[in-house]
Amino acid sequence: MDERLKKQLDFIVEIDKIKTIIRHTKLFGGAKYENDAEHSWHLAMMALVLAEHANEPIDVVKTVKMVLVHDIVEIDAGDYIIYTKLTAEKEAKEKAAAERIFGLLPEEQKTEFIGLWREFEERATPEAKFAAAVDRLEPVMQNYFAQGATWRENGIAAEQVLAVNRRIGYGSDRLWEYAKGLIEECMGRGMID
Amino acid sequence: MDERLKKQLDFIVEIDKIKTIIRHTKLFGGAKYENDAEHSWHLAMMALVLAEHANEPIDVVKTVKMVLVHDIVEIDAGDYIIYTKLTAEKEAKEKAAAERIFGLLPEEQKTEFIGLWREFEERATPEAKFAAAVDRLEPVMQNYFAQGATWRENGIAAEQVLAVNRRIGYGSDRLWEYAKGLIEECMGRGMID
Repeated sequence: MDERLKKQLDFIVEIDKIKTIIRHTKLFGGAKYENDAEHSWHLAMMALVLAEHANEPIDVVKTVKMVLVHDIVEIDAGDYIIYTKLTAEKEAKEKAAAERIFGLLPEEQKTEFIGLWREFEERATPEAKFAAAVDRLEPVMQNYFAQGATWRENGIAAEQVLAVNRRIGYGSDRLWEYAKGLIEECMGRGMID
Repeated sequence: MDERLKKQLDFIVEIDKIKTIIRHTKLFGGAKYENDAEHSWHLAMMALVLAEHANEPIDVVKTVKMVLVHDIVEIDAGDYIIYTKLTAEKEAKEKAAAERIFGLLPEEQKTEFIGLWREFEERATPEAKFAAAVDRLEPVMQNYFAQGATWRENGIAAEQVLAVNRRIGYGSDRLWEYAKGLIEECMGRGMID
């Protein structure tokens, strides 16, 4: 087998591990915790279906690729709940993970994927802002449909939920308006304090 | 909320159920059975990384979309192992599922997704052939890395594995050459008969 295909297949095998990285949120039905592969698939579908609600026109393909690869670094660095403060340690771990895992690929594919991951992390482009918006919207919907389950479990207060998720509006005012309505309903029904 | 966004969000909630549709294959490490969301995510990554090995030039974006949506019908119709004979009953179930689930979306999105699903099922275009190739390649790799686990469990003989997966070559001779090597190694090491 040629070296290039071997590298690509080594990467394909390695990223299977993302299916065992468990997130801090549950499925919409609340049946079980979600893993990063399930989450990434759902975000890709959200990007395809909801792209028209982005504040600025976005390149949908780039956004889909971005959400597909954005959590691969968690194979080494683990999942952090969104309410955790970013630390230099977490950032260093994720950077090393990106180098190791995307580094399995042929050079130009490594460069493309690391670029997509960095762009997502920096939240500067319209695509990264929209990708971050659906990345936040999914857990809000999951908590709404599972009666605030993982917000309560992790002792997250309503004001934190509002403060952190308000950033959905950076990518889509329309989707933030919807998410805010869900959070307020959760508050009104006593699911969070 | 406007009717169009409501339809899109109803669809986004409904397709969460794909995470509970369990396949007849296990993760590469053999740790657990794979579900359709994990599988679809992995195929999207395979389409992105391996597209250059298609027999004919393919539209990668269309292929990625196709693999992202190809198993959504299984929410209603369930998963069938690839060695099962196609029946009229299964086809009717999947068709009804496509109508119901994609039918939650606004009309033009419904039309696009049903079109992608049908194109995948018909295996006629270069994109559908390549999508079907990675859809078959993943279970071959999973069985190879998990010592033939689900082939043995389901009583699948080596000649069936070879006959069914030979079709990987319709989409990619290069990937079939690789898959054939894995299957022959499994046979040589007594993982399948």
